[in-house]
Amino acid sequence: MSRARFLAGDGRAVVVAIDHPLYSWPCRGLEDREEILRQVSAAGADAVIASYGTIRDLRPAFGKAAPILKLDLTTVTLGSNYPLTEYVPAWTVEDALRLEVEAVLTYVQLGAPFELEALRVAGQVAAACDRHGLTYVCEIMPIECAMYPDPAAPEAIAAASRAGAELGAHVIKTTMPIPATSLADSVACGVPVILAGGALASDRTQLLQQVATAVDQGAAGVAFGRNVWGSRDPAGMVASLCDIVHAGRKAAAQ
Amino acid sequence: MSRARFLAGDGRAVVVAIDHPLYSWPCRGLEDREEILRQVSAAGADAVIASYGTIRDLRPAFGKAAPILKLDLTTVTLGSNYPLTEYVPAWTVEDALRLEVEAVLTYVQLGAPFELEALRVAGQVAAACDRHGLTYVCEIMPIECAMYPDPAAPEAIAAASRAGAELGAHVIKTTMPIPATSLADSVACGVPVILAGGALASDRTQLLQQVATAVDQGAAGVAFGRNVWGSRDPAGMVASLCDIVHAGRKAAAQ
Amino acid sequence: MSRARFLAGDGRAVVVAIDHPLYSWPCRGLEDREEILRQVSAAGADAVIASYGTIRDLRPAFGKAAPILKLDLTTVTLGSNYPLTEYVPAWTVEDALRLEVEAVLTYVQLGAPFELEALRVAGQVAAACDRHGLTYVCEIMPIECAMYPDPAAPEAIAAASRAGAELGAHVIKTTMPIPATSLADSVACGVPVILAGGALASDRTQLLQQVATAVDQGAAGVAFGRNVWGSRDPAGMVASLCDIVHAGRKAAAQ
Amino acid sequence: MSRARFLAGDGRAVVVAIDHPLYSWPCRGLEDREEILRQVSAAGADAVIASYGTIRDLRPAFGKAAPILKLDLTTVTLGSNYPLTEYVPAWTVEDALRLEVEAVLTYVQLGAPFELEALRVAGQVAAACDRHGLTYVCEIMPIECAMYPDPAAPEAIAAASRAGAELGAHVIKTTMPIPATSLADSVACGVPVILAGGALASDRTQLLQQVATAVDQGAAGVAFGRNVWGSRDPAGMVASLCDIVHAGRKAAAQ
Amino acid sequence: MSRARFLAGDGRAVVVAIDHPLYSWPCRGLEDREEILRQVSAAGADAVIASYGTIRDLRPAFGKAAPILKLDLTTVTLGSNYPLTEYVPAWTVEDALRLEVEAVLTYVQLGAPFELEALRVAGQVAAACDRHGLTYVCEIMPIECAMYPDPAAPEAIAAASRAGAELGAHVIKTTMPIPATSLADSVACGVPVILAGGALASDRTQLLQQVATAVDQGAAGVAFGRNVWGSRDPAGMVASLCDIVHAGRKAAAQ
Repeated sequence: MSRARFLAGDGRAVVVAIDHPLYSWPCRGLEDREEILRQVSAAGADAVIASYGTIRDLRPAFGKAAPILKLDLTTVTLGSNYPLTEYVPAWTVEDALRLEVEAVLTYVQLGAPFELEALRVAGQVAAACDRHGLTYVCEIMPIECAMYPDPAAPEAIAAASRAGAELGAHVIKTTMPIPATSLADSVACGVPVILAGGALASDRTQLLQQVATAVDQGAAGVAFGRNVWGSRDPAGMVASLCDIVHAGRKAAAQ
Repeated sequence: MSRARFLAGDGRAVVVAIDHPLYSWPCRGLEDREEILRQVSAAGADAVIASYGTIRDLRPAFGKAAPILKLDLTTVTLGSNYPLTEYVPAWTVEDALRLEVEAVLTYVQLGAPFELEALRVAGQVAAACDRHGLTYVCEIMPIECAMYPDPAAPEAIAAASRAGAELGAHVIKTTMPIPATSLADSVACGVPVILAGGALASDRTQLLQQVATAVDQGAAGVAFGRNVWGSRDPAGMVASLCDIVHAGRKAAAQ
Repeated sequence: MSRARFLAGDGRAVVVAIDHPLYSWPCRGLEDREEILRQVSAAGADAVIASYGTIRDLRPAFGKAAPILKLDLTTVTLGSNYPLTEYVPAWTVEDALRLEVEAVLTYVQLGAPFELEALRVAGQVAAACDRHGLTYVCEIMPIECAMYPDPAAPEAIAAASRAGAELGAHVIKTTMPIPATSLADSVACGVPVILAGGALASDRTQLLQQVATAVDQGAAGVAFGRNVWGSRDPAGMVASLCDIVHAGRKAAAQ
Repeated sequence: MSRARFLAGDGRAVVVAIDHPLYSWPCRGLEDREEILRQVSAAGADAVIASYGTIRDLRPAFGKAAPILKLDLTTVTLGSNYPLTEYVPAWTVEDALRLEVEAVLTYVQLGAPFELEALRVAGQVAAACDRHGLTYVCEIMPIECAMYPDPAAPEAIAAASRAGAELGAHVIKTTMPIPATSLADSVACGVPVILAGGALASDRTQLLQQVATAVDQGAAGVAFGRNVWGSRDPAGMVASLCDIVHAGRKAAAQ
Repeated sequence: MSRARFLAGDGRAVVVAIDHPLYSWPCRGLEDREEILRQVSAAGADAVIASYGTIRDLRPAFGKAAPILKLDLTTVTLGSNYPLTEYVPAWTVEDALRLEVEAVLTYVQLGAPFELEALRVAGQVAAACDRHGLTYVCEIMPIECAMYPDPAAPEAIAAASRAGAELGAHVIKTTMPIPATSLADSVACGVPVILAGGALASDRTQLLQQVATAVDQGAAGVAFGRNVWGSRDPAGMVASLCDIVHAGRKAAAQ
């Protein structure tokens, strides 16, 4: 599994997600994409998940952070004509190649009405990435449903991770299970697992502790959005995450 | 963002839209397309949004105005079998290239039942334009819906503008927010924003004042239809708009 | 607009339509396609609208009449599982090229449930014809609906004609407006307009008088089916239509 | 119309259909495809309608009989989740070419919910066959519906035959009209018409008499399934059909 | 029928299926795919059915066992938004070629709402395999429905097998009929038939006896999942199956 090129030498990554404005606005803290990009890349982010327009127009601001192109989109007006989120692919691996991007992402919600089509797209994108030598990040998460009444339960997250591995993902982005100590069941899928951050946490210390636990359990890193750009100091948050995720790297260097 | 070639040297444009007869008739004042085209181009319009047939058959009448090909269409009989407007793409970037047109446009109504498909088309057209070096104008506007009870509210217009930028639009055409002084929130998306005119205004002086305010706030211009061809003197209206939009150009020349 | 090659030197045409048996049978008078083709072409018809099978198998019988390939079809059993007529494309411009046919036709009913898709097909066929140098005849007619309670009203026919021109039709086939003297509003669309004949008229003299009025108003001709092959003397009817439609030609020759 | 290469020198054919097991099982008498193929080809069958798998795997057993590839399929479990038969294309003319088959067939039920799509497929397959020099057999039959309360009525069968000719079929397979003496109305469509056999007849003599009448009326032959492989002596039945269908050939040889 | 290359020299195969985690989790015993693969291939399995990700990432662990790529997928959350299993294709024969896999599989449930589309996909995949020289395994099984109240009835399994043969399958995977002695009716379809194992059997001796009976009746082998990886000793189970399935081979060697 040598494909996930945005992972650092230690096989781990701190990823920042700034794709939110395509489906959710306002995003307090993300008004100025270019500024956020400069801050998080300078602070050591290994990769940034962003939309087509952001990557095309602001590439220099990514610095050393690898852009991860999100290939799908959903409605902007959730709750209006679309009562539920629904993702459809809009861009392709060919678009990623033209933008000189080496990694792409699509989103699968297990338990959602569009699950089957999203799984199909995931399998097709995995194969398309293999054809062209790109990295496919499969963001795959249970939502509350008949099969997963608790979408953060260890077995739900493990099922999502294993499904991602069977689909051909090179990297899996999923939810932090509760408790974080159960992550080993997910990591057993054999593909690097990075954890989403979700809503802005009220207690940063506790959040960072959870990250540390997850990394101890084998997580390959995090992919945080609101907990980075929505925080008081995005650069500081990225630096803290790098300290935890790349702790081994630091230890090795000492 | 050097793609929007129909923008004048000052980065702004006065655009006239004459695509209405494909979905709304009669259009008093637009019976003779060729005559209107000659008048508005002679009066200084930078670009004209038109349908496939108009651009193919009347190209000489565009003069120095750049044609912008509208790629999608809707029903002619709104309220009959189709209770709501719904847009689908009929032409492609390849058609634009064959017509030697350098800019295309599609329409997204945020809050409409066809929003998701329109967003997908927008992303695909943005990428297709990038493949071929064309300019993509994304006309993206909120309509009244659960998320945007007031479709002219500043945050609604800002959300639309930002979504357009994330989609990869080279230019955004959207609604004038109320008040016009709030336009800066939209312009912050980083892509040139031009403003639609909407229904024929009863008070031209007030309309032009709004345009002036919008330009002060950073608007890159206007894209007016009924307020040009439906007015008593289309050429005069275009000239007035040019005076306001290109005021800086005039000032620089003084 | 030099594309409509089946128009005679005076820019007008008498077209006969014999495509009916694909969706309506019996057709009294049209049992023998070959015989009808020989009669109407000998009598001076400029073009004949026919189905794929007819053009492929009976080409010699077209004589000097140009074949116009109808690209779409509908159900044969109207009123059974399909309560309403619905047209879908079955053949392509590539098929027309292989048959060495220079003109194609599709059908749009404004106000029908399939209107939007038919408009999209019309736009795509117009562009495909331009790619290959063929003539696109857009048959576009209002039906009774909320927007057009009277589908023969002058403004309804004018809207249809203008929509056809915006779509990129090279020739428009539409309904005769009532009164026929109002046709100028439709002809103003700038594309040659030819008029459908509809049901078999009980009074041929009156029908021919309407044609004469329409030609005076600028019609480019007629496209008659049942009023030709369903009449007592198809050849005589075609000859009469030619006399009226090409009256200017006759006058010029005198 | 020189395309129907499986017709014998007299322009007629005895066709056997053995495609039934893909949608109906058990088929008493058809358990051993290879044996039936050997029997009917030895007995003089001009062509055999069969599924993709049968033609690919048992080609030598066709002997001198031309294989006709059925391109579409329906459900196996009629009456379960699918209350009605519905046909969709699964194979293409390209598959026929690879199998070195010179004729293909699709099925249209006039009056069925899938009629419109089946007609569209028929038109597309006719054109694809013309592109590649293959023969298209259009199996087109009315079912009981509002327009055809009696699906075996002469005018219903004539409508089906004429529709097939307009679609571009090279050969039409349809139902025997009642009375068989009315077949001339169908044969007037100008394309060779062969007749399906339907359910196993209780009286073979009567069935053969109907065939003789149909041939007298201009039928180009028969396409029988259950009345061949479901009979006591398939080879004998084929021989009897050949005697009737190719009677002129026999007479000419005498 | 020389295509089924994963069959051993005796025309038979012991196949292990480990594709379950893409649609069912947890799978006790299958947590470590690599370990199971090593065990079953060492124990003599002729082939292993697996997902895209597993074949791509763990190829060396297949050893001498041939990978069979399952091309379709279903939902992970059966019973949530999807009340019934539904399979759609996600990968293609081209993906198999790139992975250097020589056999692919798709799944058809006769009696399910997606039956028609699954049959169509089966026919298309069969043809695609023929184009590229791959082996197509059609997993085709009746489920309880109006036509098959008992989905394990001999006539139901025979119908499924025959449908698979008509579709163009090179190998058929289906359910063990009850009684197993009736399998000859299915085997008569002429294509190698291998039998699925279903739920974990409580009595291994009885299960193996059924396999022996089926092989006596002409089965070409088995394709077992849970009864291999869910058993106490997967390697031992595979060895036992090989003894039975390849008994003739052993006898010949003696």
